[in-house]
Amino acid sequence: MKKTTEIIIIGGGPAGLTAAIYTARANLNPLLIEGPTPGGQLTSTTYVENWPGEKSILGADLMMRMKEHATHFGAQISTSSVSKVDFTKSPFRVWTNDNQELQAKAVIIATGANPKLLGCPGEQQYWSKGVSTCAVCDGALYSNKQILIIGGGDTAMEDALFMTRFDNQITIVQLGATLTASQIMPARVLSKPNIKVIYHSLVQEILGDTQKVTGIKIINQETNTSSILPADAVFLAIGLKPTTNIFHNQIEIDSSGHIMLTNNTHTSVNGIFAAGDVCDRKYRQAITSAGFGCMAALDAERYLAI
Amino acid sequence: MKKTTEIIIIGGGPAGLTAAIYTARANLNPLLIEGPTPGGQLTSTTYVENWPGEKSILGADLMMRMKEHATHFGAQISTSSVSKVDFTKSPFRVWTNDNQELQAKAVIIATGANPKLLGCPGEQQYWSKGVSTCAVCDGALYSNKQILIIGGGDTAMEDALFMTRFDNQITIVQLGATLTASQIMPARVLSKPNIKVIYHSLVQEILGDTQKVTGIKIINQETNTSSILPADAVFLAIGLKPTTNIFHNQIEIDSSGHIMLTNNTHTSVNGIFAAGDVCDRKYRQAITSAGFGCMAALDAERYLAI
Repeated sequence: MKKTTEIIIIGGGPAGLTAAIYTARANLNPLLIEGPTPGGQLTSTTYVENWPGEKSILGADLMMRMKEHATHFGAQISTSSVSKVDFTKSPFRVWTNDNQELQAKAVIIATGANPKLLGCPGEQQYWSKGVSTCAVCDGALYSNKQILIIGGGDTAMEDALFMTRFDNQITIVQLGATLTASQIMPARVLSKPNIKVIYHSLVQEILGDTQKVTGIKIINQETNTSSILPADAVFLAIGLKPTTNIFHNQIEIDSSGHIMLTNNTHTSVNGIFAAGDVCDRKYRQAITSAGFGCMAALDAERYLAI
Repeated sequence: MKKTTEIIIIGGGPAGLTAAIYTARANLNPLLIEGPTPGGQLTSTTYVENWPGEKSILGADLMMRMKEHATHFGAQISTSSVSKVDFTKSPFRVWTNDNQELQAKAVIIATGANPKLLGCPGEQQYWSKGVSTCAVCDGALYSNKQILIIGGGDTAMEDALFMTRFDNQITIVQLGATLTASQIMPARVLSKPNIKVIYHSLVQEILGDTQKVTGIKIINQETNTSSILPADAVFLAIGLKPTTNIFHNQIEIDSSGHIMLTNNTHTSVNGIFAAGDVCDRKYRQAITSAGFGCMAALDAERYLAI
């Protein structure tokens, strides 16, 4: 079965749904393919406190409202996933896991990213109960607490510095022998009296009292000794994996897997746009993704008008 | 009276208020100075249909909710206006019209822009009753209608092409003898059967039936003859004036008055950031301004942490 449409949006998080709202209101009859995580990363959190205008809203509720908004203005939303694409010429072709072949004059990629996880016991159980991958989002919930940051790169340094603003005691737990963050950040972190760093340490388990995190169990890989670190919150900052596997060899992607952009939302192929965490490693907020989704929609609309 | 704070935000539209929400949640105790238009341009519209998650909300209500959100997390909001700034060295200095001298380690400028107006009779009376400056926002309200676009530059061409998506009859009313838009846009516009262009035409009055726009009165400046064009909507696309007067000689500003940025939200002075319509001439949506306000807040937080 073959179906042709003006624009396809791949991904149903804040970037994809905002692009759907804007392209639907521009009468472009968008088809949004939600993929495996409808609503995106926000649906795996509990309350969101930083969506402007909402002091506190369940992530899943916010995303449901965006989805209703998009369909209200005529966006079609498909629950299938994209298995393959061909962007070599226009109309671009997109195949789904339920054996549809779709064609479109423009495509917006908003497939997002997944934070890398430890894969250790307790991680899933205490997810959003002290375990988080976003200090900017959840940091304000902790003041005068014991905070663990797992990782040694730029994000771990930023998270640790961010958490000092709330008078916390912070421990960075790094697997390697050094901090790998760039520029002056390690020096700045090491100069802070309320941040300490422990090295060579592998997280074996996240511990809790069934309601919330109470600490972690680590093993020092040099001495082979285990120990327990008490904690009120554990922030994972061990990297992100953008969802770009199916786009390799189609558009330019950098070494970390993020889609490379020029001129805001344009990918290396004219007519293919991208927005949200699939191309943003720096801000990664629902509101920034939504803003970029709008920009991709307007860029696509102007591309189609010429 | 002198007062020192970590961060000052100038402007209380979507960019400024989102920056206030993020910096407040980062415990930076922001002081937001609203200036002459609290809430920004959205407060002069009626219903907004493109804020993600809200099918239809009064612009003023959305902005009130953002303001409550910012104060809920501890942002201070001042109703005064900024009369002068000194960004030559840190701490930066900001003077208000009620004779306060403020100091801050970082400043976010979110003073927005004002669309240029015709200044003719009927314009204020029919504002949001058929007169609009945002085709992307309000275009979906009109289908199979007579639409007038006032102006001959890039925005006028984009607006005209956008409005063709709704099966409208479109007339571009241009004061000069030619379209001034760049690249291939005029040719593209002139090739559309449902767009016509009239030149040498000055708008003298916007006409209505007291409830909504019914047309405009124009005078042809070559022949000196007046005529009436019927219309269901009039989109003004005659330019924008960013609110940057007080920042000249402090940071780099381009020939159109927009603040020039590098690396997303950084101005030419380290520690001074900008977001929203004061630096964005391309997208100018509430959601894009909010996204950039968040980015400015995160950039400022990281600047202050180093």
